[in-house]
Amino acid sequence: MNHETEVFFGLLVVFAAAQIGAEVAQRLRLPALVGEIAAGCVIGPSVLDWVHVTEPLEMLSGLGAVLLLFSVGLENCIGDLRKVGGSATLVGVLGVIVPFVLGSAWAKWSGFDTPKALFIAAAFVATSAGVTARVLQELGVLDRTFSRIILGAAVIDDILAMLLLGVVSAIQSGGAIDVTHLLIVLGQAIAFIILIAWAGTHIMRRSSPILDAPINPFSALTLSLALCLALADAASYLGLAAIIGAFLAGLIAAETRQRETLSLQLQPILAFLVPFFFVVTGSQVDLAGLSELSTLGALAGITLLAVIGKLLGCGLGAWSLGRKSALIVGVGMVPRGDVGIIVASLGQHAGIINNETYTLLIAMVLLTTVVAPPLLSLILSREAA
Amino acid sequence: MNHETEVFFGLLVVFAAAQIGAEVAQRLRLPALVGEIAAGCVIGPSVLDWVHVTEPLEMLSGLGAVLLLFSVGLENCIGDLRKVGGSATLVGVLGVIVPFVLGSAWAKWSGFDTPKALFIAAAFVATSAGVTARVLQELGVLDRTFSRIILGAAVIDDILAMLLLGVVSAIQSGGAIDVTHLLIVLGQAIAFIILIAWAGTHIMRRSSPILDAPINPFSALTLSLALCLALADAASYLGLAAIIGAFLAGLIAAETRQRETLSLQLQPILAFLVPFFFVVTGSQVDLAGLSELSTLGALAGITLLAVIGKLLGCGLGAWSLGRKSALIVGVGMVPRGDVGIIVASLGQHAGIINNETYTLLIAMVLLTTVVAPPLLSLILSREAA
Repeated sequence: MNHETEVFFGLLVVFAAAQIGAEVAQRLRLPALVGEIAAGCVIGPSVLDWVHVTEPLEMLSGLGAVLLLFSVGLENCIGDLRKVGGSATLVGVLGVIVPFVLGSAWAKWSGFDTPKALFIAAAFVATSAGVTARVLQELGVLDRTFSRIILGAAVIDDILAMLLLGVVSAIQSGGAIDVTHLLIVLGQAIAFIILIAWAGTHIMRRSSPILDAPINPFSALTLSLALCLALADAASYLGLAAIIGAFLAGLIAAETRQRETLSLQLQPILAFLVPFFFVVTGSQVDLAGLSELSTLGALAGITLLAVIGKLLGCGLGAWSLGRKSALIVGVGMVPRGDVGIIVASLGQHAGIINNETYTLLIAMVLLTTVVAPPLLSLILSREAA
Repeated sequence: MNHETEVFFGLLVVFAAAQIGAEVAQRLRLPALVGEIAAGCVIGPSVLDWVHVTEPLEMLSGLGAVLLLFSVGLENCIGDLRKVGGSATLVGVLGVIVPFVLGSAWAKWSGFDTPKALFIAAAFVATSAGVTARVLQELGVLDRTFSRIILGAAVIDDILAMLLLGVVSAIQSGGAIDVTHLLIVLGQAIAFIILIAWAGTHIMRRSSPILDAPINPFSALTLSLALCLALADAASYLGLAAIIGAFLAGLIAAETRQRETLSLQLQPILAFLVPFFFVVTGSQVDLAGLSELSTLGALAGITLLAVIGKLLGCGLGAWSLGRKSALIVGVGMVPRGDVGIIVASLGQHAGIINNETYTLLIAMVLLTTVVAPPLLSLILSREAA
């Protein structure tokens, strides 16, 4: 096979697997993404080994995640998010502290020294907004208060996780913690978010008339997509997750009068690209590394710990909303994402953790991702009934 | 910059440049793709050097071309194409012979020995259906007879070019031409096209009722996209251009009752991905290599030869349609594409041609691509007036 044939074959396998997985999941009344992640597990290296995550596939997966969060931002509005700012901050902060404490306790108990234990605990922290946002979107509850709190908390959570990673990396490398540097990084990130949210909204409200006389029916769409790529890149440059930038771009674009059109035109693009994100995520689960019973036990243990950490921390933060909503927020924050995987990869490359611990952490991150969506849809469907 | 930041930055630069280029071109009443290709030249290595064609970008560019030809197929139908089969074959065959003869004459005259001259001439042959199809699409004339002849001829042209490349490569490597192997390759390609066109159409007409009860509003879209990827990959596997497979997939999908819906839902995806194809194409023009006057003269010469070759060959083939349509078909077949670039690259790697000839051939291919669209829209707008 020449290179082009190979690249298209990879795309085809991933895309087709996603369609089959989504179809099966929806017939079982589960969110489509659960089927897509499961399909990824099956075609990934640990089962069928039909697909390897090459650079082009990784890029499509990243693009899928970015566009997904853009569309989530588009269905929200800054005013509504600001209303839940207090609760979201509380949820975000407690949702970082509790898993971090539980994670480091487990790592200490497993025999790691304190610097290593703190490093490992960092993998317990960061919520993946992408997965939960998609579940909430599929269930049509993005405009509910608990959804807004989850999305706001995910932004806070991401800032804190980035900060934490800086601290534990510094401790690990034995160097003194450069507080000034960390404060600058933190300041930049917060300034970026506030600036974009504030200035962007005002500019967008004014520029709306310009977009009203477009040169072609997709001018508003392509302009917003350029904005989305720009803010995703800026966020990534500042050390935040790219999807946070995309989410902000969506929030801003939602202030224009073209919101409805944008939302409609975005749907087919999402239908094409988002599945790549979930299948690639699923394909990274190394089931082979988990074949031993003792490893499975350890995995069950740390996954439970990771779930309890977010349930407790975030549930506590959202307690004022009532038990039901607190439970939804807690479960909604359970899926771990990119940051957990990045921490584990960093640790493995630096020789801080061995292959077994690496596989455990990656599997934990992905299990939280697989477990949360069905739980969330169960709780929400009961509420509806 | 970390890797993610860099990848998104590349996407952003290409996408933003495309929007600006398209806007400028449309204000000058030129097809948007002319502006996109020009924008690619400007941000490419030879001027601003803002973008390098990495693997992810190349993949998005390929995906853009594939989806574009899928949409062109969707706007056609096999029955109408079959009606122009005879003329299209004549245009395709003459459009390969005349440029090949002119190209080898030029190469002989330039001092290359016969095997090398035949190899170089192969770069003069293959039409890029993508560029012309987009121009015809933008001008809204895809349903005219000359458009159908151009599209049909492009398929024939692609088969012949593939065959020719096999022959000249064999001559070049000094080996005997393996006629059996060539016939097998040719037979496979033709069988593939006929099988897909015939069986696909019949299956699609039957499966339409299944698609009528979809599980979600994008089932028909995602199924067609999977079909498009599958046929593009199959075509590439058989040595044809991937876009020929995508075109066939579009033709088949056009037979379903969801044609209108598909066409509508595809538009935003095209608006997002097709610009990557044209900008990446433009970014490959190495203007720096063409700074010397003698080189510029040679370039003007071979480009003229390449244009005249197609005008004569294809125009002659379409003569029965009248002078006007013959001219449109001739100009429409002028843009050279991937195959020309592939031949030049093969020749350079194998040491058959030197860097200067390589740059000349690449520049010729791209110039034909830049020259044809404005000419075509000029001729067509006069016709409308």
